[in-house]
Amino acid sequence: MSAENAAPWDHVGNAGVSPIRAFTIEEGLDLACGRRLAPIEVAYETYGRLDEGGGNAILVCHALSGDSHVAGFRPAEDPDDTKPGWWDVMVGPGKAIDTDRYFVICSNVLGGCSGTTGPGSVDPRTGEPYALRFPLVTIEDMVDVQAALLDHLGVDRLLSVVGGSMGGMQAIAWTRRYPGRVRTCIADATTPRLGAQAIAFNEVGRRAILEDPNFAGGDYYGRENQPDSGLSIARMVGHITYLSDVSMRAKFGRRLRERVDYAYDFVSEFEVETYLTHKGRAFVERFDANTYLYMTKAMDYFDLAADSSSLAEALRDVSARFLVLSFSSDWLFPTASSRELVAALRAVDAEVSFAEIPSPYGHDAFLLEPAEQHAFIAPFLACAYEEV
Amino acid sequence: MSAENAAPWDHVGNAGVSPIRAFTIEEGLDLACGRRLAPIEVAYETYGRLDEGGGNAILVCHALSGDSHVAGFRPAEDPDDTKPGWWDVMVGPGKAIDTDRYFVICSNVLGGCSGTTGPGSVDPRTGEPYALRFPLVTIEDMVDVQAALLDHLGVDRLLSVVGGSMGGMQAIAWTRRYPGRVRTCIADATTPRLGAQAIAFNEVGRRAILEDPNFAGGDYYGRENQPDSGLSIARMVGHITYLSDVSMRAKFGRRLRERVDYAYDFVSEFEVETYLTHKGRAFVERFDANTYLYMTKAMDYFDLAADSSSLAEALRDVSARFLVLSFSSDWLFPTASSRELVAALRAVDAEVSFAEIPSPYGHDAFLLEPAEQHAFIAPFLACAYEEV
Repeated sequence: MSAENAAPWDHVGNAGVSPIRAFTIEEGLDLACGRRLAPIEVAYETYGRLDEGGGNAILVCHALSGDSHVAGFRPAEDPDDTKPGWWDVMVGPGKAIDTDRYFVICSNVLGGCSGTTGPGSVDPRTGEPYALRFPLVTIEDMVDVQAALLDHLGVDRLLSVVGGSMGGMQAIAWTRRYPGRVRTCIADATTPRLGAQAIAFNEVGRRAILEDPNFAGGDYYGRENQPDSGLSIARMVGHITYLSDVSMRAKFGRRLRERVDYAYDFVSEFEVETYLTHKGRAFVERFDANTYLYMTKAMDYFDLAADSSSLAEALRDVSARFLVLSFSSDWLFPTASSRELVAALRAVDAEVSFAEIPSPYGHDAFLLEPAEQHAFIAPFLACAYEEV
Repeated sequence: MSAENAAPWDHVGNAGVSPIRAFTIEEGLDLACGRRLAPIEVAYETYGRLDEGGGNAILVCHALSGDSHVAGFRPAEDPDDTKPGWWDVMVGPGKAIDTDRYFVICSNVLGGCSGTTGPGSVDPRTGEPYALRFPLVTIEDMVDVQAALLDHLGVDRLLSVVGGSMGGMQAIAWTRRYPGRVRTCIADATTPRLGAQAIAFNEVGRRAILEDPNFAGGDYYGRENQPDSGLSIARMVGHITYLSDVSMRAKFGRRLRERVDYAYDFVSEFEVETYLTHKGRAFVERFDANTYLYMTKAMDYFDLAADSSSLAEALRDVSARFLVLSFSSDWLFPTASSRELVAALRAVDAEVSFAEIPSPYGHDAFLLEPAEQHAFIAPFLACAYEEV
């Protein structure tokens, strides 16, 4: 492809260099579980420049295994960095979330393991890592931390809060918790409440971690043996749910890896097995098992209607304009969940655009379908920005 | 419901008392993996009587966690037995597979843990359980053992071979491996070859077992600690795939068990979690972890077209008449797999009837929808029996 014909998302890493910054909420926050956590350190990155009126700020919220590094490279951590941020196809100059126009903020969530205070952080009262003594956090707690970060950055009101999957839960929660601070919300491949099947898959992953003997009740930090087996099994289960049956058939079929005949042994021999095993092992290198427990639990707890008589009732005071996107082959956060959100928004006369994007890539489609998402997100943001 | 209005499948356990019998293939069998296994003991049960012409014999093949006890009670094992066989709704007097008319045979599969020789059996050469020294078995190996059992019982030709899920794989394999010995085949909620997603879920279950420290390389028999955690996690994963998202929403939703508010702890608190945990624990009581490995691997290996240029080519010499049934919400063995089989059968001019039964129960529907299955299976068998 010649450079002239390349689509914006083909320009890998052109959001440039993104240093991680840190901000501390010294006084901490009261959490949904009733406990107070202090201090809270927040790792975040920004892209582009906040304009004079402060009307071009977009908060991007990450999913279960994401971090603050949404786009571009991080040579400070790795001089040979060739792996751009997790949503580089969507965030950068000329991309759907255009860093030439907008000021983009992304922070690691509360409970995370990439800079923001989480179970792996040292509890100042004990000098030891919190581990399972870390309070359970909710999506709403994550949002409160992000709100404190916006105060710190001098951002009064967001042009948009955007997220996919667990990030989408945060985006939706923002519109209800801080209705005056968000003009628009992009809820991508997400749900206003997690269903039983997704909770069940999360519980299997948690069991695998909790019952790994190296988990040691969560106090495995600094030990020789880590709960790698449990975390890797949890990731394998998760990964299957992020793909679709169709894409797995297309990608792997029944092909064997580096052999013609069956091994008649319990080695991984189908390509899909070795792929998953690899994904599980790679995850262990970069993620903390305790954080996996906290993130999945936060997702399980998320139910926008938990303290309301209905989803519509819960959305009564929402003023943000919504763009809701789902993907046809996503069976973890199926289109039906998005439709439920859309119906509730329409019931309270909120402004909402909705599209189900045809894709074979399952839940992961929100990371893999830049063109289709660009077509919806870019004009949605442009239109909102014109009105600022 | 009055007794007169009760449907046949409401008469629980009316196939009566079913003692387990045993038959030994002293000379053993050559297996697909290239090894010879001898002797092979086969646990089986029969229901009804073989008629004089021997034309009323039906072989029922069980799924992953099943056994020879397809219907009725087994007071010899448990005087207070109130739990009838695994397909009691389908097998018994007046039921779809009518034991007043047909002679029904069901045997525990090769590699099983309910009487037939498997990894938990003692290797006569060593006096120790085979454990992982047991040869890997295939669906075709299971079928060869069943064929030897039929020889022993004096059954030349089956009126039908019937099975759901892994049992359906055996049924399909029968029509190809012994085309002269089967008049009809009922392939229920099954597939002519396992897809990548199902292989992936099986691999996750195997990893959980293989990496359980109490697994001890498979040599856990007689030890104090058993690989209960791994087997229970494997079962939890499996169980999610047997249900549908719709039925899980209906059955559990987001309800909490015995509490109103979130626990903010890592206990199982959603009903779906405690249900799965219970299912996992109960399974450990009755099933062997090594057998779980062997059964899932046999399913993964099953590919009717493995040594043919196409599925149709593989079915070229099949003479059995087929009834293929799938269930609308079954996403593990989806209707598309059944259609693939049907299309291949039609391509070689085989006789095949096909129906997708509407059901919310997912893959488990073949165990839970007696009325709909009765409506297809009873006349299909009656018609075949008339022609004998």
